[in-house]
Amino acid sequence: MKEIKAEILSWRPPRFSDFTLTRPFDDFQRALASLGIDAVHYARIDEERGLEEAVQAAIGKASIVCVVMEEGDRWQDRLDPLRKMMAKVSRKRLTLTGKSDIGLLPGGTDVFIDSQTGAPLLLLPFSLPDSSTPTLLIVSPGGEAVLKRLLKEVEKTILKLFDLRTRGRWVRMCGVQEEAIRKWRDQAALGAEVEVKLFPAPAGIDFLVRSRQETSLKSVIETIEERWGVFCYSWEGDTLEEVVGRLLLQQKKWLAIAESCTGGRISARITRIPGSSRYFDAACVTYSYPSKERLVGVPKEILEAKGAVSAEVAAAMADGIRRREGVDLGLSVTGIAGPDGGTAEKPVGLVYIAVSDRQETIPERFLFQGDREEIQAQAAQMALEKVRRNLLRNERLKTQE
Amino acid sequence: MKEIKAEILSWRPPRFSDFTLTRPFDDFQRALASLGIDAVHYARIDEERGLEEAVQAAIGKASIVCVVMEEGDRWQDRLDPLRKMMAKVSRKRLTLTGKSDIGLLPGGTDVFIDSQTGAPLLLLPFSLPDSSTPTLLIVSPGGEAVLKRLLKEVEKTILKLFDLRTRGRWVRMCGVQEEAIRKWRDQAALGAEVEVKLFPAPAGIDFLVRSRQETSLKSVIETIEERWGVFCYSWEGDTLEEVVGRLLLQQKKWLAIAESCTGGRISARITRIPGSSRYFDAACVTYSYPSKERLVGVPKEILEAKGAVSAEVAAAMADGIRRREGVDLGLSVTGIAGPDGGTAEKPVGLVYIAVSDRQETIPERFLFQGDREEIQAQAAQMALEKVRRNLLRNERLKTQE
Repeated sequence: MKEIKAEILSWRPPRFSDFTLTRPFDDFQRALASLGIDAVHYARIDEERGLEEAVQAAIGKASIVCVVMEEGDRWQDRLDPLRKMMAKVSRKRLTLTGKSDIGLLPGGTDVFIDSQTGAPLLLLPFSLPDSSTPTLLIVSPGGEAVLKRLLKEVEKTILKLFDLRTRGRWVRMCGVQEEAIRKWRDQAALGAEVEVKLFPAPAGIDFLVRSRQETSLKSVIETIEERWGVFCYSWEGDTLEEVVGRLLLQQKKWLAIAESCTGGRISARITRIPGSSRYFDAACVTYSYPSKERLVGVPKEILEAKGAVSAEVAAAMADGIRRREGVDLGLSVTGIAGPDGGTAEKPVGLVYIAVSDRQETIPERFLFQGDREEIQAQAAQMALEKVRRNLLRNERLKTQE
Repeated sequence: MKEIKAEILSWRPPRFSDFTLTRPFDDFQRALASLGIDAVHYARIDEERGLEEAVQAAIGKASIVCVVMEEGDRWQDRLDPLRKMMAKVSRKRLTLTGKSDIGLLPGGTDVFIDSQTGAPLLLLPFSLPDSSTPTLLIVSPGGEAVLKRLLKEVEKTILKLFDLRTRGRWVRMCGVQEEAIRKWRDQAALGAEVEVKLFPAPAGIDFLVRSRQETSLKSVIETIEERWGVFCYSWEGDTLEEVVGRLLLQQKKWLAIAESCTGGRISARITRIPGSSRYFDAACVTYSYPSKERLVGVPKEILEAKGAVSAEVAAAMADGIRRREGVDLGLSVTGIAGPDGGTAEKPVGLVYIAVSDRQETIPERFLFQGDREEIQAQAAQMALEKVRRNLLRNERLKTQE
């Protein structure tokens, strides 16, 4: 079987955003990977005149070519050069789609409309004269967000068009060492038809399990669940803030956070989720000594005796924010993100995380590796994981009743 | 003159981080763009065996080929396949570098050592038998962070090797409409040798001004400064949190923040900067009604009469956090990030931002467009810009004294 390759073309200027939450095309790339399509190339198209040339070159190398446009509300303005390009590379004639705001498209184009913006996602399968495998051109005039929202439709088309038998599942873990997972994977008898890929993630690891046989995929997933289940926060590719959000909503609990070295990252992740105001009450980023006293009520004596980065202060922060805000769960993080501020006794990367509920407050000690950004990201991830485990424990207690 | 193209190869798995702060290769891409090198392609190398093949293919298409490895502390382990690849594609012999932890490298390789990790950055210029322009191979065994830190060295080598005369400057603006800038650029007499590229950025725009003549570049920069100076926060490519951080440090002022719809993003951006604990005191993310009362002292009557998203509440939040924390500057943001929660009177995208200093508290109204993430990003950017303007006003007052 010929290996199917994909190429992604981005028709837009690079965006120098200071604060993007995901890497470009993550969702698309992830979806392709779980169908067994690995080799992904990116190219940026600078000017309109280069579009057709770039797509032609990509078609020469890949069976799936995806053109993503700049985000924005002017997708209508871009339709004209796009439909011309689509007709030219596919050698198909333009015909009316029946949708008045889209008009002409090459025959055979599948049109999906994004419910949020009204922008179309265009899927055009065609055959090149000298090729036995089909080519799929995916065009998203509405940008990456539209592609992401209509990903299921793209997956369906790809599965059918290329008759793919490989299926994959993403499993995401927090709180395990990559080494341990790697060792287990290399030693476990997972079956020759099964492929397990590991991707490093902050404070954990993401798994991609692939197989051509549904039964062996299922059995490997079960093996992972048995051996590593407690560490797996997602079996569907969800983020930890999505998982924690759902648990809080189900259990009708409210969360408040006291952050220090993570500087607002946990709160920013929680509030990425629409509707998070139904379970997230507040966060205090207590970056100075006095603010830890004033905002979350850490006793001055503890701060002076133990220092801001200590189990005692983490516990007082989590307990303090929970009581002050009168919520079910308090979460706190205090640590040294670096690059300066570390000592022999308290090195860069030392982080305390505490979770406080109405029964107890438990601080834990961590030592993360990496630069400032990596330490902040790992601490935020682990903190969310600690909330998940607290919520799951209650879940389990409830089931046992 | 032959156009110089660059290709970036990434030898690492895609990282599905939930919370990356910049897009991959941003800094490198930005540096190349300011030297007039635009066409940047990315390719991911999946397995070790594919390295040489990928580099060979890239050399066929581009004059500058950059190989970036996975981050981490094991750059030593990767040196061996890398040096073999370098020797093979350049057809040069391996010789001792004189640095014991690096050992052998092809003759002519320039080695720069990263002071933070000790990892080398390897620059190898060579000539292909059938080409008149040189080829530059850039290899970063220590990853993207090392490449970023040693970018100046890379720039120097590129300038000299390719005898480039184009120079560029990045200008970053906040608070202007893209349309206005675009119109001005198209109408202003900037000179035929000058190229001005615009890149959308949250709540503003980034400019790249390029020219082969130093004098005309200077004169265009002066023209921009005269016409748009008040909106320009950076002439060197700095982020707004870097600029604001420097101003706070210079003026010996402390900042505290009360966020609502931005959910901790402003605080997270401020605390990206090492040493921000010298001017950043605290942030409260008051996501619920009661937390606005309890944490920053917004009077209940105002909340009930005006609603959480109002000029009055924004003012009370900024003033409240400043007084409670006893700092020089209070910043607040309250708004509707969507996708739900909007009304005809208070639509999604409505945001109030207030800055409070010891003299006055000024709330302002904004209406941002886009999805939840885009609205949050724009609100955070504009809020930081408001702090910058407040600090600059004081700067100007001081100069006039």
